[in-house]
Amino acid sequence: MADSKLLPSPGGDPVAVETLLQDVFGIVVDEAIRKGTSASEKVCDWKEPEELKQLLDLELQSQGESQEQILERCRAVIRYSVKTGHPRFFNQLFSGLDPHSLAGRIITESLNTSPYTYEIAPVFVLMEEEVLKKLRALVGWSSGDGVFCPGGSISNMYAINLARYQRYPDCKQRGLRALPPLALFTSKECHYSINKGAAFLGLGTDSVRVVKADERGKMIPEDLERQISLAEAEGAVPFLVSATSGTTVLGAFDPLDAIADVCQRHGLWLHVDAAWGGSVLLSQTHRHLLDGIQRADSVAWNPHKLLAAGLQCSALLLQDTSNLLKRCHGFQASYLFPQDKFYDVALDTGDKVVQCGRRVDCLKLWLMWKAQGGQGLEQRIDQAFALARYLVEEIKKREGFELVMEPEFVNVCFWLLSPSLWGKQASPHYSQRLSQVAPVLKERMVKEGSMMIGYQPHGSHGNFFRMVVANPTLTCADIDFLLNELERLGQDL
Amino acid sequence: MADSKLLPSPGGDPVAVETLLQDVFGIVVDEAIRKGTSASEKVCDWKEPEELKQLLDLELQSQGESQEQILERCRAVIRYSVKTGHPRFFNQLFSGLDPHSLAGRIITESLNTSPYTYEIAPVFVLMEEEVLKKLRALVGWSSGDGVFCPGGSISNMYAINLARYQRYPDCKQRGLRALPPLALFTSKECHYSINKGAAFLGLGTDSVRVVKADERGKMIPEDLERQISLAEAEGAVPFLVSATSGTTVLGAFDPLDAIADVCQRHGLWLHVDAAWGGSVLLSQTHRHLLDGIQRADSVAWNPHKLLAAGLQCSALLLQDTSNLLKRCHGFQASYLFPQDKFYDVALDTGDKVVQCGRRVDCLKLWLMWKAQGGQGLEQRIDQAFALARYLVEEIKKREGFELVMEPEFVNVCFWLLSPSLWGKQASPHYSQRLSQVAPVLKERMVKEGSMMIGYQPHGSHGNFFRMVVANPTLTCADIDFLLNELERLGQDL
Repeated sequence: MADSKLLPSPGGDPVAVETLLQDVFGIVVDEAIRKGTSASEKVCDWKEPEELKQLLDLELQSQGESQEQILERCRAVIRYSVKTGHPRFFNQLFSGLDPHSLAGRIITESLNTSPYTYEIAPVFVLMEEEVLKKLRALVGWSSGDGVFCPGGSISNMYAINLARYQRYPDCKQRGLRALPPLALFTSKECHYSINKGAAFLGLGTDSVRVVKADERGKMIPEDLERQISLAEAEGAVPFLVSATSGTTVLGAFDPLDAIADVCQRHGLWLHVDAAWGGSVLLSQTHRHLLDGIQRADSVAWNPHKLLAAGLQCSALLLQDTSNLLKRCHGFQASYLFPQDKFYDVALDTGDKVVQCGRRVDCLKLWLMWKAQGGQGLEQRIDQAFALARYLVEEIKKREGFELVMEPEFVNVCFWLLSPSLWGKQASPHYSQRLSQVAPVLKERMVKEGSMMIGYQPHGSHGNFFRMVVANPTLTCADIDFLLNELERLGQDL
Repeated sequence: MADSKLLPSPGGDPVAVETLLQDVFGIVVDEAIRKGTSASEKVCDWKEPEELKQLLDLELQSQGESQEQILERCRAVIRYSVKTGHPRFFNQLFSGLDPHSLAGRIITESLNTSPYTYEIAPVFVLMEEEVLKKLRALVGWSSGDGVFCPGGSISNMYAINLARYQRYPDCKQRGLRALPPLALFTSKECHYSINKGAAFLGLGTDSVRVVKADERGKMIPEDLERQISLAEAEGAVPFLVSATSGTTVLGAFDPLDAIADVCQRHGLWLHVDAAWGGSVLLSQTHRHLLDGIQRADSVAWNPHKLLAAGLQCSALLLQDTSNLLKRCHGFQASYLFPQDKFYDVALDTGDKVVQCGRRVDCLKLWLMWKAQGGQGLEQRIDQAFALARYLVEEIKKREGFELVMEPEFVNVCFWLLSPSLWGKQASPHYSQRLSQVAPVLKERMVKEGSMMIGYQPHGSHGNFFRMVVANPTLTCADIDFLLNELERLGQDL
């Protein structure tokens, strides 16, 4: 009787499965990879939201669709998506398409597992540890711990949670009400995830004490000292400093050695948010920007940004060798982590994290590293610095462009002065008019699909462009294009 | 001078890129898809950790490797990985390989974007909203909000954070110290992420009040009432009840209507952790198990489990229409979310989440749904229930098998009594000896690679097997194999 209810098994025809996947892969190669990285194609095919909804026919119905319809849908999804691997996509801290990383991601998806136990992810449990070990070695640590997190924001939260747990292990059970008021310190240039994290973790954004930064965006250690005294005078207990290596807009590197001195004097956990700048550790030429990072307690580093490892690849690295991660986050669920397994359960990573299932984020980085070698990756970093320098020199040569400041990283911040603004620096409303240029140009470039670059106001400055040199295939020609295209788009303003 | 430092651009040869990806995709099809889902191949090729490290040669070097070496590495990674799409992988709450979902995941990886702004993810911002709308409709809501999170644990945390923010908006800024002691309620059968979440969010695990469950694992609403009174008497402020639809081990569904009544009486936020059971909402026949879910404030639902959408696909759904998500999590970072954009910035989802970049998790589910239709997905759910029922009937027929309890879902919990235990139920040490059977069989099946199924102790019960019928391609033959293989593996015990 039970048997009679059984339906024919759906979707189990291996030939049909392979044919579908071959067809889709063909579309991916044609549309996302070949066209998606070709300078002669658009970086995006802009549609207004209402029109795009119609084009995509998003609604989910009761009836399934034919293979032909599904393939057409795949084409449409790619067609109307922004091509982040395109040589004129400069909009984000990630860009470019690394083929080995993509290969690793496709394998990851086909294997569809979670690295919480050695049992179901033997390769990835070992691989994750090896990759983390390599990243730690670049930080300067011969031992330690770590884990891949779903993004830098969560890596930063982990650091805050670990720091407070290390100081007040009671917190895990009894919560923050059992603790004195806590204070953590970061510069005004820090990533907003520090504030989001403080709120999420129950500390509240008031617990984040903002330290002044200099005109380049670097934390001022003397002001850190002052903020610590101030917090203490107000009855708060300082417990963590979050320094930034590579700020989001200006690309600034906080002076880690001086900050580590302060942390050492006050017994504070030093976290370095190197989500953006961490990859510079691969470059012998430029890694001095992170001097002192080996003195940190924790480091967040996102190879999905400058190394183009693919979203997401975010490592939280720890100097700790006392199993702090597992003690802080563990809950010993007997169904997933029974202790009578036939292998060493210390390999199971599940209790290092606050997630249960989590994605495999190591293979894409590992495979890319195997293919390029540390030297190949170092060359990419050096290339990005050199191209950023080329851009700076070109900006200086051209009338109508003005640097916000000399960059020390691959963020290059600048204004385009449209012709009507030339020579008008002293006129009233100049700043306001300058600030209106970027949004107009942005709209124009996106609607034409020629290029994408971000802009933002910052501090006392009105809107300026932030160029990010991250795509490993960029050349001087792409940089020239950027400047020519901005001139063209703004010539009538 | 700057120019002279520039190196030839690495990895930019389009033909080489395509060739590599075609080769890797061929390996994926052969090894992960064809062999990985074939019953005549092993589900895993077990190696001890030290041996596997040698086989994989994990170390990352300075020198890159040849294309041939890289392809060999791809083969090795797949060879030694567990095949979670294999018809004899019963180990987790996810299994099976849906080709349309995998197609969606490959496209997602090739496009490599983050849905935080419409600007760089126009298709996925609209698609995510449409998919969430559909999931909400199945819950029973015609409006609301939601977001995809990196796993059910984080979805559950979001619910807890939203509930406390709604009651005490001050918390975001001033932290938990400004609040009275809070209490949340969940049954002893809840997922461990509730406890992990309470610790992470600064509430502490003491804030989690454990409600009794009946012998089937369902929360007892009368005990919930009692725990609320108890917490109040101790000076705590109850704010949230987390009910579970589909517990991890027993597959139990809490009585949502009765729990909603309690929540209504006390003005508590009702969260339903339907990470596992949520997909049952697609079945007209079985959705009564979640009766009352429409009265929840929030629901966590992971289509990556029973719907085989691929890790990870976890939706947090909200009944709220007051923009609670953005108010609770937003930080209005001007660099990412300037307000002078040329499109409606209300489309940008970035301030709904505590992450910054996040993965696109909607396409795989959307494409699978388009291909199967709601009817096709419903058929899968019904099929899983029918196969679980078939398994139960077979267990009852066979000597040497004993059900832990009659299941109401697709988790089937049972003991294998090895021959030496037959008829010895009354003997001393029987329970202890029975408990030793599962670990021995598990080791044997994994080392042979014939099958993978999980076991655990639970409550007063010693180790038993937990079969999960989740792979959509399973047939009665696979169920027969499971039982036959357990008999074979245990015949000498």
